[in-house]
Amino acid sequence: MSAEVNAWPDDPQLDCDEHGHMPRLNVSLKLSALDSQFAPVDTEGSFRRVAARLRPILRMARERHAFVHFDMEQNDYRLLTREIFQRVLMEPEFRDFADCGIVVQAYLQSADDDLRNLLDWARNRGTPITVRLVKGAYWDFENIVARYRGWPVPVYRRKWQSDDCFERLTAVLLQNRQWLRPALASHNLRSLAHGLALAEQLQVPPQGLEIQMLYGMCDQQAQLFRKRGHRVRIYTPFGELIPGMAYLVRRLLENTSNESFLRQSFTDSISVESLLMKPSSHAAAEPPVVDPPQAGFVNEPLSDFSRPEVRAAMQEALAWVRDHLGATYPLVIDGKLCDTRATLISRNPSKTSEIIGKVSSASHDQTADAIAAARRAFEPWSRVPVESRVEYAGLIAAEMRERRFELAAWIILETGKPWQEADADVAEAIDFCTYYAREAQRLSEPRRCDFPGEENSYVYRPRGVCAVISPWNFPLAILTGMTLAAIVTGNTVIMKPAEQSSVVAAKLMEIVRNCGIPAGVVNFLPGIGEDIGPVLTRHPDVDLVAFTGSQAVGLEINHAAAETLAGQRNVRRVIAEMGGKNAIIIDEDADLDEAVVGVVRSAFGYSGQKCSACSRVIVLESVYEPFLQRLTDAVKSLQIGPAEDPGTRIGPVIDNDSRDRLLEFIRKVDPEHGGQVVLAMDPGPLSRQGSFIGPHIFTNVDPVAPLAQQELFGPILAVIRVRTLDDAITVANGTRYALTAGVYSRSPVTLKRVRAELQAGNLYLNREITGALVQRHPFGGYRMSGIGSKAGGPDYLLQFVIPVNISENTMRRGFAPVTENHS
Amino acid sequence: MSAEVNAWPDDPQLDCDEHGHMPRLNVSLKLSALDSQFAPVDTEGSFRRVAARLRPILRMARERHAFVHFDMEQNDYRLLTREIFQRVLMEPEFRDFADCGIVVQAYLQSADDDLRNLLDWARNRGTPITVRLVKGAYWDFENIVARYRGWPVPVYRRKWQSDDCFERLTAVLLQNRQWLRPALASHNLRSLAHGLALAEQLQVPPQGLEIQMLYGMCDQQAQLFRKRGHRVRIYTPFGELIPGMAYLVRRLLENTSNESFLRQSFTDSISVESLLMKPSSHAAAEPPVVDPPQAGFVNEPLSDFSRPEVRAAMQEALAWVRDHLGATYPLVIDGKLCDTRATLISRNPSKTSEIIGKVSSASHDQTADAIAAARRAFEPWSRVPVESRVEYAGLIAAEMRERRFELAAWIILETGKPWQEADADVAEAIDFCTYYAREAQRLSEPRRCDFPGEENSYVYRPRGVCAVISPWNFPLAILTGMTLAAIVTGNTVIMKPAEQSSVVAAKLMEIVRNCGIPAGVVNFLPGIGEDIGPVLTRHPDVDLVAFTGSQAVGLEINHAAAETLAGQRNVRRVIAEMGGKNAIIIDEDADLDEAVVGVVRSAFGYSGQKCSACSRVIVLESVYEPFLQRLTDAVKSLQIGPAEDPGTRIGPVIDNDSRDRLLEFIRKVDPEHGGQVVLAMDPGPLSRQGSFIGPHIFTNVDPVAPLAQQELFGPILAVIRVRTLDDAITVANGTRYALTAGVYSRSPVTLKRVRAELQAGNLYLNREITGALVQRHPFGGYRMSGIGSKAGGPDYLLQFVIPVNISENTMRRGFAPVTENHS
Ligand SMILES: Cc1cc2nc3c(=O)[nH]c(=O)nc-3n(C[C@H](O)[C@H](O)[C@H](O)COP(=O)(O)OP(=O)(O)OC[C@H]3O[C@@H](n4cnc5c(N)ncnc54)[C@H](O)[C@@H]3O)c2cc1C
Ligand SMILES: Cc1cc2nc3c(=O)[nH]c(=O)nc-3n(C[C@H](O)[C@H](O)[C@H](O)COP(=O)(O)OP(=O)(O)OC[C@H]3O[C@@H](n4cnc5c(N)ncnc54)[C@H](O)[C@@H]3O)c2cc1C
Repeated sequence: MSAEVNAWPDDPQLDCDEHGHMPRLNVSLKLSALDSQFAPVDTEGSFRRVAARLRPILRMARERHAFVHFDMEQNDYRLLTREIFQRVLMEPEFRDFADCGIVVQAYLQSADDDLRNLLDWARNRGTPITVRLVKGAYWDFENIVARYRGWPVPVYRRKWQSDDCFERLTAVLLQNRQWLRPALASHNLRSLAHGLALAEQLQVPPQGLEIQMLYGMCDQQAQLFRKRGHRVRIYTPFGELIPGMAYLVRRLLENTSNESFLRQSFTDSISVESLLMKPSSHAAAEPPVVDPPQAGFVNEPLSDFSRPEVRAAMQEALAWVRDHLGATYPLVIDGKLCDTRATLISRNPSKTSEIIGKVSSASHDQTADAIAAARRAFEPWSRVPVESRVEYAGLIAAEMRERRFELAAWIILETGKPWQEADADVAEAIDFCTYYAREAQRLSEPRRCDFPGEENSYVYRPRGVCAVISPWNFPLAILTGMTLAAIVTGNTVIMKPAEQSSVVAAKLMEIVRNCGIPAGVVNFLPGIGEDIGPVLTRHPDVDLVAFTGSQAVGLEINHAAAETLAGQRNVRRVIAEMGGKNAIIIDEDADLDEAVVGVVRSAFGYSGQKCSACSRVIVLESVYEPFLQRLTDAVKSLQIGPAEDPGTRIGPVIDNDSRDRLLEFIRKVDPEHGGQVVLAMDPGPLSRQGSFIGPHIFTNVDPVAPLAQQELFGPILAVIRVRTLDDAITVANGTRYALTAGVYSRSPVTLKRVRAELQAGNLYLNREITGALVQRHPFGGYRMSGIGSKAGGPDYLLQFVIPVNISENTMRRGFAPVTENHS
Repeated sequence: MSAEVNAWPDDPQLDCDEHGHMPRLNVSLKLSALDSQFAPVDTEGSFRRVAARLRPILRMARERHAFVHFDMEQNDYRLLTREIFQRVLMEPEFRDFADCGIVVQAYLQSADDDLRNLLDWARNRGTPITVRLVKGAYWDFENIVARYRGWPVPVYRRKWQSDDCFERLTAVLLQNRQWLRPALASHNLRSLAHGLALAEQLQVPPQGLEIQMLYGMCDQQAQLFRKRGHRVRIYTPFGELIPGMAYLVRRLLENTSNESFLRQSFTDSISVESLLMKPSSHAAAEPPVVDPPQAGFVNEPLSDFSRPEVRAAMQEALAWVRDHLGATYPLVIDGKLCDTRATLISRNPSKTSEIIGKVSSASHDQTADAIAAARRAFEPWSRVPVESRVEYAGLIAAEMRERRFELAAWIILETGKPWQEADADVAEAIDFCTYYAREAQRLSEPRRCDFPGEENSYVYRPRGVCAVISPWNFPLAILTGMTLAAIVTGNTVIMKPAEQSSVVAAKLMEIVRNCGIPAGVVNFLPGIGEDIGPVLTRHPDVDLVAFTGSQAVGLEINHAAAETLAGQRNVRRVIAEMGGKNAIIIDEDADLDEAVVGVVRSAFGYSGQKCSACSRVIVLESVYEPFLQRLTDAVKSLQIGPAEDPGTRIGPVIDNDSRDRLLEFIRKVDPEHGGQVVLAMDPGPLSRQGSFIGPHIFTNVDPVAPLAQQELFGPILAVIRVRTLDDAITVANGTRYALTAGVYSRSPVTLKRVRAELQAGNLYLNREITGALVQRHPFGGYRMSGIGSKAGGPDYLLQFVIPVNISENTMRRGFAPVTENHS
């Protein structure tokens, strides 16, 4: 294009700024388009990959006399975008390159600092850049996402604040334009006029600043400014028609929102004076928004890894944990530490030679001791007032918050979970503490049904001793959830964590002890599942078994627990969350961009080792080819690596046994009926150091083949083609499981059908099917996926208590007190 | 006493009325004191027994020149008391006896009719009687009891209405005193003065009416009236000191209540004018009370058998059912009637030669068919809107109300339940229909947890096919409860009733079909439990088993159901309500009158054949002797008889097998450790016609002897003596069960301890431990008494549904709709 553009006749008004001729060709880039793995958590990796593609672009720009402009996208990407921009342009090769620029978004509360940062950097670099000052294109998005994540909203909440900031930064730019060449990108006549007036005041020559507008937004005004002698640049998409049109439509939607200048300028009811008012004059009528404190349960926000100090904290935690590997962890029974002869060695799945710790392995006798200790502790614990138990839960949550990065680091190293998932695991554990504490408080209020002469109270009492058998894949969250549910309702617990995550479990035990929970209320009993599991689940003194894990073990526990032995006090209650063979349906009406992102996250997050993971994607044939192509491309770009590397998207699986079983299964897939492999990524040399297996995608999978029926805990995805939505739903429902399921579709008719007909405990429409949050997405399934209720939901604690009704006759010889409760 | 009294000197003012000399000795009787089985439902029996004791009293009164007065007690007894009074005094021997009287209570809304009835009767008899006009002594009691039972309140609700009625009836009495001699019993000067003034006006001689007052209430006023020449009679208890004092204390309490004249006359703030106002002048300020319509669930009221038309309806129903005995009842599978070769003969336990009906006995194949039918019907039924299912439940309840006495009659004849318990069974079945319908409506409202960009709904879906296995002892109620719970939440049902109550079950099936519930939604599958039970509970297509019955079978079902078979869709869920070994503690602070009544009802109601029945009474040694004595006396007076006889307190047990097992057990009781029999009532000739066994009481029962540990479904009570309350609680908690338990004590400290420490799902303080009502006393226990939740309570339906969470991402390309639901 540059050749063509450079052939245009010269026009000094357009072609020159105050420093001389400018490039005519001015291209804007979004850096995220240069890297499919663009992610702030992986700042180094993103920099490396983007820079590699950016340098040739800059070279070509220099060569062809073109200007390269860096757009700013959502706030998540801001610091990463800026860092890449600054690091590349500081490299010797590009240090003197001036035909480049970056956006500053005035709607951000950080905008003043952002501009200050660029100014200092530009001075330091010694070469000017252009700054395109805008308000910002993602206002709705930033609000929605911040509210959802529980993060502070990064943008201003009042339009006048954005306008005011825009004008404030206009002044900074104009005053510092030898380093930061001003481009004011706006369709707001007041904003632009302010800039021009200020420029006049500061005696800035007309070419000293540039006005930028979007194509088609306000061509008349563009001409107007042009006529007054200013340089106006129109920004337009270039390339394929459909994405380009989509781009313009989105800009149109945004620029005609209720609060936008363009729209308001077309409305008779807003006066010209009002439109042209100084922004801060609106302040009295519209004071800055202050959110009221939130009542009720609030999810613990995830960590913001786009911030360097947060990444640094995680790195420090990993280093600290590394220094503390290899310790021995005893049993904890009745508050006392017990060493054992046998130990379980826990290894780092990313690097199996690295020992995380040595955990005691309980014997049958010790199992019996632990149960006896829990039984003894039950009586007194059941009499502790609910307010105190709630307080203990709060103390546990508080210590988890304090040790957040350390706990995440243990999870990363012991179970191979990547950074963000490990962080989410700790956040979920905290959520279980606070949510179940509230629920226990709620359940502690007796229900009354009173009449004159009779008072009836319906109350809940704890069941007794609870065996908690937890899995390695949410090594802190699920163990915490089941344990807290039990103790906060007055039960006592024996924790039997998965062997592969027993060190993380030991950390929870540590926290429980630190918080002063009485001896025997929580006992720590790591050991070999096949060995002590049956002892625990068949013991007459165990009243409740809370289990999350495989279907085979869950059903076995359910069956064994239902056998009532001599001397047993209670019929044993079982809560079992088992597996899934979860499917996402891709409808012909799906937004394929979102669908691909969602399927990749759901199928390959934590290498597919979540019970909620997507292992089948069921695609309507009309979108099959494009979807499969984009899916495969996206998966290919996933980085396989050790979990502690922030750039890793595909970490190891939990251990060599798991990897070997998966490879064996893959080997046996029958291409004729079972599916054909279209992608099988090789972990390469990583395979020698850890339990790695790369993502696999199979197509032409028969819905009843083992690949489409059997739960596989790994990064293996079966793609099933169907003709109609009917078929899709039938196939989706056609396994023994019903845990999670999803659909991508923009058709309201499809969404309505799916809501009613798709069989899953957790149904997701147009979003990933993993990442359930406490309270918002109470988690649990039915059929072979589950027996009990939903964790993190309003019915969960009912399984841990016994309802009791107390009826008192208050009549004495014909007389009874009357209270206000009476019906 | 009469001799002494008659020796007093003559005093015409006191000794004469207008007709001549009156008896000096005037005794008042409460008829209920003459018969320990005094019960309006058994009008004939009560009459017979009371009359037998009354006639000698009347003869002696005549002989000794004494006056016998019949008090009126609670409204329940009113019609029975009057009937006995009128029938005895109409007998030739007593027809001319005038020295007798009866009370009319002016606080009753029926008072005008009551007096009219007595007037007509007295004219017809041809001999005058005295009528003591009072307001009434049970005002609080009548209000409490009516509100509790859901019956209309029989008394006036405004004090002035009672006063007004008193004055109105004073006029009637004075105008008709040749038949009804007036005695005005009141301490209210206005009420009395009105009577005296009216008497003057009607020219009634001073001795023409009598004033009566209670001893110690207002002696000065009594003297005042005496001085003015009127006959004043003071009413005082005679006999043992303590009961007499208790009587006076109660009268004192009642007569000094806030609204009483006596109390108000002592208060300065009420003016004399107000006190002496014509009662109806209060009407404007205090209009008659109108109860607002009741919102929310209301229990179906029990039938009022004190009313002759109600008793007649029951007799007619029994006669009608008798005319319809012996029919054959087919299976109902998928809406079609299926006869079978094998049938179960159902016999009347009161008269085992009488066949109630022949019920089909399902085979294994038919069991499979029924399950298949329920499976097919599930899909469409689960899509029926909840409002329609709620409507069906309403239709079932409506038909049960219409056929109430008929259904009760079937229960009486097929399962040997006495009248009132059979009536309560039908009422409870109606309650389950209406209560669960409301609950299903409530659960059908999705719980929302919305955020901008994401909408989350937590909803409940039905589980699938439910096998309902019901017991004979609440043959309609429990079957209805479990079936309605299942279908109203969208499940389908196979009903397998107990063999001994399959005809009653067939009646429920009839009602279900009459109400138009689609074929296959409820299937009727009577048969031999040991035979088809396991087929039902182990079938892979059965998702839920709801069972009420014995512990042995319940545990077996729980164990079998927990085995997950190949091809099974869901892990089978079991709800099991099993038995109890329920105890009542008699504290040293107990009101022994109430305790004896409560223990007798709880232990021997329906011959002890309720899971809630009291089978152990644990007595503190300080009250042991008096309690045991009174208990034994009370039990001895229980009438054993066929269930259809309204006077029967002890009917048969369910069948000969049951009786034989009980007798065998009794035979084996070891007097050294197991207990000594102090009462063993013999049913006599009844034993030849039905499955009768009389009440048995054992004392010195060792708390761990089989008699105190093993559930026995029969009229057998173990009395255990303990030294302290600690021991009592330990013994009460010392069985494998925890279903119901109770305590009689007036000590707040004891009550508080028991609330916290007694282990039972349904705890009762100072009342019988049977007779749980839907919603007020959600019913169910733990330990070996139960697995699931509490029937008739707010958590019950949760067992019949699966919770599902649906999460929709409503964001499209950065924009999302905002609704008012959003957090
Ligand atoms: C050439 C060009 C390039 C651009 N490049 C980028 C880019 O790389 N990145 C980017 O983010 N934007 C970019 N924009 C800006 C964006 O696309 C919109 O055009 C711009 O925000 C609209 O502002 P305005 O001054 O024209 O209109 P106005 O109507 O004056 O302002 C509308 C803007 O105000 C802000 N706003 C609206 N409501 C509120 C509120 N309640 N509280 C606070 N603020 C509010 C929003 O930012 C909204 O866009 C660019 C714009 C142009 C013209
Ligand atoms: C000798 C004698 C024998 C008696 N025998 C019997 C008997 O057999 N059976 C029996 O039931 N009573 C009997 N009574 C009556 C009873 O014991 C009380 O003494 C009597 O009701 C009190 O009424 P009073 O006129 O003295 O007082 P008042 O103060 O004028 O009236 C009090 C009475 O008003 C009625 N009352 C109170 N509040 C309300 C209200 N909110 N709405 C409507 N009514 C209200 C109650 O009946 C209450 O007792 C007898 C009384 C006497 C004196």
